[in-house]
Amino acid sequence: MIETPYLLFLGDAPDQLAAKVAQGIKDWRPEFAVGQFRMEGCKADMKLTDMTLEEAKAAGAKTLVIGVANRGGIISPAWKKVLVAALEEGFDLASGLHNLLRDEPDLVAVAEACGRTLHDVRIPSVKYPIANGVKRTGKRCLAVGTDCSVGKMYTALCVEKEMRARGMDADFRATGQTGILITGDGVPLDAVIADFMAGSIEYLTPDNDPNHWDIIEGQGSLFHVSYSGVTMALVHGGQPDALIVCHEPTRDHMRGLPGYRLPSLTAVRDMALTLAQVANPACVVVGYAINTQHMAEDEAKAYLASVEADLGLPATDPFRFGAGKLVDALEAI
Amino acid sequence: MIETPYLLFLGDAPDQLAAKVAQGIKDWRPEFAVGQFRMEGCKADMKLTDMTLEEAKAAGAKTLVIGVANRGGIISPAWKKVLVAALEEGFDLASGLHNLLRDEPDLVAVAEACGRTLHDVRIPSVKYPIANGVKRTGKRCLAVGTDCSVGKMYTALCVEKEMRARGMDADFRATGQTGILITGDGVPLDAVIADFMAGSIEYLTPDNDPNHWDIIEGQGSLFHVSYSGVTMALVHGGQPDALIVCHEPTRDHMRGLPGYRLPSLTAVRDMALTLAQVANPACVVVGYAINTQHMAEDEAKAYLASVEADLGLPATDPFRFGAGKLVDALEAI
Repeated sequence: MIETPYLLFLGDAPDQLAAKVAQGIKDWRPEFAVGQFRMEGCKADMKLTDMTLEEAKAAGAKTLVIGVANRGGIISPAWKKVLVAALEEGFDLASGLHNLLRDEPDLVAVAEACGRTLHDVRIPSVKYPIANGVKRTGKRCLAVGTDCSVGKMYTALCVEKEMRARGMDADFRATGQTGILITGDGVPLDAVIADFMAGSIEYLTPDNDPNHWDIIEGQGSLFHVSYSGVTMALVHGGQPDALIVCHEPTRDHMRGLPGYRLPSLTAVRDMALTLAQVANPACVVVGYAINTQHMAEDEAKAYLASVEADLGLPATDPFRFGAGKLVDALEAI
Repeated sequence: MIETPYLLFLGDAPDQLAAKVAQGIKDWRPEFAVGQFRMEGCKADMKLTDMTLEEAKAAGAKTLVIGVANRGGIISPAWKKVLVAALEEGFDLASGLHNLLRDEPDLVAVAEACGRTLHDVRIPSVKYPIANGVKRTGKRCLAVGTDCSVGKMYTALCVEKEMRARGMDADFRATGQTGILITGDGVPLDAVIADFMAGSIEYLTPDNDPNHWDIIEGQGSLFHVSYSGVTMALVHGGQPDALIVCHEPTRDHMRGLPGYRLPSLTAVRDMALTLAQVANPACVVVGYAINTQHMAEDEAKAYLASVEADLGLPATDPFRFGAGKLVDALEAI
């Protein structure tokens, strides 16, 4: 568990897109974002107060989060001075980069000397159990996709936000690096040892109040041959009561797999539901979340209307048009 | 890759069952089993020549394989003297125990001093790639199960044996500890990091001659909520041309999951085939391998006949009645 709130480190980000982790935190957990730290030449801006380390400390920030990815995912020497100073100032550090904080001897030495913690969210920090499949209390919703990177994390975060706005008891449960940094907690599922994947998701979504919803971030796709095993562990370990099928309609092949066409919405619906009902026979599909970012507004609305007409369930782009329809359906369960 | 042939170490095995790894090697790779080493009180016997380390060395053995599991999977102090002496004699050591050879400082020190290798087959020794899904040459058959431990490894080994007896070009591909020790090579899939599971199976079953068959050992079950992600990686990473559905008819719940009934043969057939056709649209189910060890012979034969009548494909207990029917069906592909 990463201590909040955060100072968001934007470093020397070459553009706004390079700071998408910081953007995610700003968008979804603004209360965690005390301020931003930008180095000379930084081209990203979260429209937060620019702070020195001292100012951020005085404002209550506990952890400096590396909110930027540079080419190759490395920890740039230019950043080192700031990171060392942050540890000395009393911050923990958190990073989702491929190269780990713990593999930098200077950071390790300073963190030890100052009694601070280095959080590498790419690596599990927990010894997860093997899944036992025992029915848990509380409710769970899982986003499943036709492909990787079709908006499963944003869908889950939109649903959480809408539920909380309605006064419902809901928690987004992160299963990837960005989600973990946004919320400060979660399971880096793609880095878990095979035997413990489903168990890690049981651990992430334990018994809860009967009306509590875990909104579980999906990963991969049951139809993506590189990562389908990870998705399967979510479907069985998550024990979902409800599934939301996520899709990006303009893609012409599976991400990273030029020879593979995307499956249809009905194929994903039927496959995911059949498998989910092994762990939870009461599971239902509640609707479709369509990522329409590459479509004009009228085109997007026409597409959503056609999905609803063809498949008989609510369809929305939750980021663009709100998650209300999906939450209506979840509330009705 | 473990150097063959082996001296099989039976230690102080309390009974024959405790030496099932040694039994597997003796049954399936008798040419790898130069002899056996038994300590005082050993109750297991592979009917191999009892040899001293010196005799086994003279007979050509390269690796001492720990062919016995003791309670808790630990490396017993009583064994240590023999293992150290074996390293000094010039043997490598190979083990599938939970406790690792490499975690025993005395063994590590002696192995280094003698230039020998410690093989812990529970741990991957390769940095596997992420699966790319590209169609590979050669043919592949995968055993899928209704549950864990229903005979998938024995089915695959029986099919390999029958194919080789017919002069076909076939290799059993091990995906678990016992299988790896039997053949000297393979992928310990349950210990692979999630993101690389399917890639490890692509690595295990690379391009091959058009008429070559990889007979891939299955793991878990698509319907076993603890391990289904592992099975999924086999179905997609293995890119099978043919599936054999394996089943044990007398079990009243899924292994380790008291609340879960076994799926039907048709449910497993349909689910596995639909998923396998994502990676290989030409995949077919060729038949059923039924583990009838808990059934009388007439009961077993009646059961097999009923499966064939109901499902329209060959059904056999390949260990009890031979794998001929299954290989007939595979040869016809």
